[in-house]
Amino acid sequence: VSTNPAARTLCRPTFEAALGPEAFVRAMLGFEVALARAQADEGVIPAASAAAIEAAAREPLDAESLVTQGKWSASIAVPLVSALRKHAGACAPHVHFGATSQDAIDTAMAMCVHRCIDEADACLAGAVASLAAKAREHRATPMLGRTLMQPARAITAGLKLARWAAALESDRRRISESRGAIAVQLGDAVGALESMGTRGPAVRARVARALGLADAPAWHAHRGAWIDLFDRVGLAIATIGKIARDVALLSQPEVGEMMESAPREGTGASSAMAHKRNPVGCAHALAAALRAPGLVATIHAAALAEHERALGGWQAELAAVPGLMDALGSALDFLDRIASGLVVDAARMAANLRAHPEAAMAPGAAEALGLALDEQLKAIG
Amino acid sequence: VSTNPAARTLCRPTFEAALGPEAFVRAMLGFEVALARAQADEGVIPAASAAAIEAAAREPLDAESLVTQGKWSASIAVPLVSALRKHAGACAPHVHFGATSQDAIDTAMAMCVHRCIDEADACLAGAVASLAAKAREHRATPMLGRTLMQPARAITAGLKLARWAAALESDRRRISESRGAIAVQLGDAVGALESMGTRGPAVRARVARALGLADAPAWHAHRGAWIDLFDRVGLAIATIGKIARDVALLSQPEVGEMMESAPREGTGASSAMAHKRNPVGCAHALAAALRAPGLVATIHAAALAEHERALGGWQAELAAVPGLMDALGSALDFLDRIASGLVVDAARMAANLRAHPEAAMAPGAAEALGLALDEQLKAIG
Amino acid sequence: VSTNPAARTLCRPTFEAALGPEAFVRAMLGFEVALARAQADEGVIPAASAAAIEAAAREPLDAESLVTQGKWSASIAVPLVSALRKHAGACAPHVHFGATSQDAIDTAMAMCVHRCIDEADACLAGAVASLAAKAREHRATPMLGRTLMQPARAITAGLKLARWAAALESDRRRISESRGAIAVQLGDAVGALESMGTRGPAVRARVARALGLADAPAWHAHRGAWIDLFDRVGLAIATIGKIARDVALLSQPEVGEMMESAPREGTGASSAMAHKRNPVGCAHALAAALRAPGLVATIHAAALAEHERALGGWQAELAAVPGLMDALGSALDFLDRIASGLVVDAARMAANLRAHPEAAMAPGAAEALGLALDEQLKAIG
Amino acid sequence: VSTNPAARTLCRPTFEAALGPEAFVRAMLGFEVALARAQADEGVIPAASAAAIEAAAREPLDAESLVTQGKWSASIAVPLVSALRKHAGACAPHVHFGATSQDAIDTAMAMCVHRCIDEADACLAGAVASLAAKAREHRATPMLGRTLMQPARAITAGLKLARWAAALESDRRRISESRGAIAVQLGDAVGALESMGTRGPAVRARVARALGLADAPAWHAHRGAWIDLFDRVGLAIATIGKIARDVALLSQPEVGEMMESAPREGTGASSAMAHKRNPVGCAHALAAALRAPGLVATIHAAALAEHERALGGWQAELAAVPGLMDALGSALDFLDRIASGLVVDAARMAANLRAHPEAAMAPGAAEALGLALDEQLKAIG
Repeated sequence: VSTNPAARTLCRPTFEAALGPEAFVRAMLGFEVALARAQADEGVIPAASAAAIEAAAREPLDAESLVTQGKWSASIAVPLVSALRKHAGACAPHVHFGATSQDAIDTAMAMCVHRCIDEADACLAGAVASLAAKAREHRATPMLGRTLMQPARAITAGLKLARWAAALESDRRRISESRGAIAVQLGDAVGALESMGTRGPAVRARVARALGLADAPAWHAHRGAWIDLFDRVGLAIATIGKIARDVALLSQPEVGEMMESAPREGTGASSAMAHKRNPVGCAHALAAALRAPGLVATIHAAALAEHERALGGWQAELAAVPGLMDALGSALDFLDRIASGLVVDAARMAANLRAHPEAAMAPGAAEALGLALDEQLKAIG
Repeated sequence: VSTNPAARTLCRPTFEAALGPEAFVRAMLGFEVALARAQADEGVIPAASAAAIEAAAREPLDAESLVTQGKWSASIAVPLVSALRKHAGACAPHVHFGATSQDAIDTAMAMCVHRCIDEADACLAGAVASLAAKAREHRATPMLGRTLMQPARAITAGLKLARWAAALESDRRRISESRGAIAVQLGDAVGALESMGTRGPAVRARVARALGLADAPAWHAHRGAWIDLFDRVGLAIATIGKIARDVALLSQPEVGEMMESAPREGTGASSAMAHKRNPVGCAHALAAALRAPGLVATIHAAALAEHERALGGWQAELAAVPGLMDALGSALDFLDRIASGLVVDAARMAANLRAHPEAAMAPGAAEALGLALDEQLKAIG
Repeated sequence: VSTNPAARTLCRPTFEAALGPEAFVRAMLGFEVALARAQADEGVIPAASAAAIEAAAREPLDAESLVTQGKWSASIAVPLVSALRKHAGACAPHVHFGATSQDAIDTAMAMCVHRCIDEADACLAGAVASLAAKAREHRATPMLGRTLMQPARAITAGLKLARWAAALESDRRRISESRGAIAVQLGDAVGALESMGTRGPAVRARVARALGLADAPAWHAHRGAWIDLFDRVGLAIATIGKIARDVALLSQPEVGEMMESAPREGTGASSAMAHKRNPVGCAHALAAALRAPGLVATIHAAALAEHERALGGWQAELAAVPGLMDALGSALDFLDRIASGLVVDAARMAANLRAHPEAAMAPGAAEALGLALDEQLKAIG
Repeated sequence: VSTNPAARTLCRPTFEAALGPEAFVRAMLGFEVALARAQADEGVIPAASAAAIEAAAREPLDAESLVTQGKWSASIAVPLVSALRKHAGACAPHVHFGATSQDAIDTAMAMCVHRCIDEADACLAGAVASLAAKAREHRATPMLGRTLMQPARAITAGLKLARWAAALESDRRRISESRGAIAVQLGDAVGALESMGTRGPAVRARVARALGLADAPAWHAHRGAWIDLFDRVGLAIATIGKIARDVALLSQPEVGEMMESAPREGTGASSAMAHKRNPVGCAHALAAALRAPGLVATIHAAALAEHERALGGWQAELAAVPGLMDALGSALDFLDRIASGLVVDAARMAANLRAHPEAAMAPGAAEALGLALDEQLKAIG
């Protein structure tokens, strides 16, 4: 989600929206309101204060000016909390009580990431189903297997497609297993809920429930579970990138065995050549796959938080996570495209295979290829 | 330059503007107009066409809808050129003649980067001068030298400051030496100016001159010089990060030898603790320094362009370059802060040094330290 | 595992051995023998051939000359298989039957990594237990909590230690959950066990069992599960790096609250200053943590395998995985050190805290800190 | 340079030797001897001491045990200096006088890197000459230009080759311009030559001269120039990777326009398929290009040295630099191969181009292509 318009042509609109200024500010306000309500329910602050904070959160807030003021503390939460306190009048001391900037920001980021991960799950599942169906359709379509970019031995198009589907399904499951990391952040200044005495954990649990997030001890300075989720996002992007590379190689007209979608006016257009139909989905997926490793590396590098809250590391993560979500969105755009439109040309596959008699299917290989395909599809379940 | 507001609290406003939608679209239009004029001057297209294109470029263009349409080709230039052609009426065939999307986009990116690099040069020069002056002031201020984060031997505050200044000056010069990479991109579909016969090079030279860029053969697919510039930006960020780390360590109250600036209401504020004055400049610089290596890696990784224009690599670079400029801007913010406000506490330095008699200055060391300082300052020139 | 001796001073000896030439060649031979036996048991090759191959595998093999010859195919398995075939005489055609280079190399790498992961598990568990015990011991030892490298509010040393322990335990569990990825690789030329008809899967299961590896469909070109394991290794290294950074900061004599171990002659020595006791364990851990993100990024980047076997990507992974194991070993060396020797200075903690009355523990905070500590220790179980 | 034999099949033997244990220990001893001689010449130590140190340096030293002992200080220099002092008897106090571990290790690394950079320069120059000659030969050989992996417009094989040559020549020149970074490191404990009073700079200049290195102020903690050299090495690897990707794409039998070298028994062999001739040079180059960005990122990340000598960062660099030299060596192996053996199939080029009449050369294009080729060759000079 970059404001540079050239960079933004790589972005998935729903993901841009999920992490954009409106959604993010709304999520931070949602955190503050949920915190106040939970504290009221637990008797930490008066119910009237919670109501006043809820009302204050409905006042208009200019995201742009929050950004400008937030630069002075490297925290968008500082001006947001100030604004809320101003609107809350006498209840100001109860605004953001027992919380710190990172609580509001991490929780908001988790809420935004949540939406992206939900959408990714659905998109991955759809692509898996579509590719698996196509794999069954082509279980007996022979094609060249290629290793080190040279002809090796015959496989079936079905096996290739089934492998893609199984790999995506593994990625989907891994991400799903790591969703517990999409948790509320509530820890107060040093992560110990130290202003709420013994009532902190109950408040935290209520906030988590209200926001649809997992409940977990404060993860200010130990972000392993959170990063694990992003590593797995990175793995999904890598799988999609691998599929895109295969599709791009097979789309070369000299090979001609697949296309990401049937040619269509306007899609993949060039400003110089009217005849061009570029594999724009592959471009999106490969660009995503080229960016993701650097972003994953940054998120890992940023994890060496000093003491009870990082100086620089956490802030770097705040820039890298939206970037990684962008890359994921871009990769999903490609996946949607092939899920609905992948073209498989069995005739070209047969012709290319015939040109390499040394790669022809040996006796027994057909059965082995069938077993291999079944094993992949069974893994999808 | 991310639309995520938390990420944006790390950004330098002038750099956000330099790469933002308005500036970028204006730069692309500037390219198209300069191209048309140059082609008219060289007799490639009629002068009337150039005038029509110039007029067309004054029509309002909605950056947001360019982005939306640009997703279909992963190129913001495709819809921009379409819009220009529509506005140019009968002269449409002369719009973007002999050019391709990458020409417009790379040239626009070079123009935007140009502004950032100019500003960086001034900012680096200012910091160098300021730190060198402070180094002279503290040429005889003894302090602990520390290695592997343990006391080593005495140095002078002046030497430390002079080293920072000299390192920044080297970074500034290296970036300056690589400015030839801020060049026009004009190559046409396969980078050979193939639609303009023998007039291509002259047109290209005119466009470069008009836009204040270097002239160079098309660098579509061989981006070494361009990346070299960004590597050097990465080096400057690393130096600034190193300085920020030193300042952050010296700002720990148990050490207390420096502060990035005198404490001031609102700067480095916390939403939880009224007493806090966080070293927000260090946070900016360190966040930048943690992000830059991953961005540099991405730009290198994206360089393996296939054939005459990359599938995915170039596009990934388009996302990474604005990110790296963001990191640079954020690092410069810190530099501006210490250039004007760095606090050096000679008394604390002396006290901390006295606590480590084994590190005290040996006979002859003072002279050596003076020479070392002079050598650094001399390198600045 | 680098032959450069300066680089090797960072390596854990058992890890160097686990991935070194002797162990790796032995593992490849182990694969070839297990394959032959499994094929004999399944009737794919005669039992006499399996016996001959087993005998051939006992012949001496010069790792150095395998390396030299392996350069011609970028595969250490090609010369190893040639040598085995030569020694196997008439049974040569049954050597490596139904297998390909990547099968032997990936399986051998999995076997070598297996040993490292086992050792890491024990080392992590030991450190968790030790730190948890120390956390209980210091559950009421107050110390400054620090955020953005500035004093924030009081915590307890116990909470800090418990967080380290809980983070390491999470890392250990995550790695453990990903051990299914330490699987046999057996797929043949295109990964479909295509030379063994329907008997391939049974042979593969036998080989896995014999070598103590998981059984899994060929993962030649879709390496998500394998990489997931390394991401988690990277996360463990990051946690260890974070702990090392904390220890290094607390070991500054101006702070003086912890030491990685009591000073000892020779450990952390300097060639220039007799008084020096550098925190060499922190140096190892931080160097590991600085290297790991780049290695993780490389492994992700290498995953975009073309078609049925990568050209370049898989080979890059072969260089990066031993590097990441090196980093892990180096990080574990630090962990062993603090598990047995971490020094906690409660008096200095108290003194430093007293210097910041604004950070003193508020009423109710002690109870909250106790709960927070218990929550961390409970997570360890 | 990894001791893992699978990883080592990617390495260039001369580069393995240049950074291996023997060469590195010799280089460190060379530093110590040169230092002693220079100090004797400048009257810092007696001539007899220098002679004794020179003799001591001829005593056998076991690299393996230096590594083992070096782990206790994360410095191979500590045990080396101890050993030298033992052998030097009464002159022991003059061994390594006025120096620190990093001085010996950085200088030795610079000496080893020097040899690699020299060899790289020659290899690059050779490839440039060879490719430029081939470019001239094929200046009128038409072939498909391809963008986004789809047919674009006709270019000439000569232009493609000339671009490769010019890019390599730029890389070569950039590396050459950064050779001043291959400098002696001599700074003493805090980098100020503080033990030698005013004689430090003269000693340092003598050591530099003796070792064939540049003279420069100590660069312990500000490593910009040194890293700049490695960035440029990374750029050369990227160019070579780009060429390898093009060659690999053109070597697909369905395209058939180039081969890295004529097929030869044993080169690019497979352990599973007798018919295979894998483009093993491309595998080496692409594996190098996939590894280099992560290594460059690590070297940048490691640059945030704390105070007067890093804790962890410098040590991480020591592991990364040999890795990057490995990658360079591997990339050069590919370059040597294509310099002597690249196969260009003009007939297939013509045939593939004929299949795309929409890409045929327009009137005037041939002239433009000739100019473009000349511009590239002229840049080579």
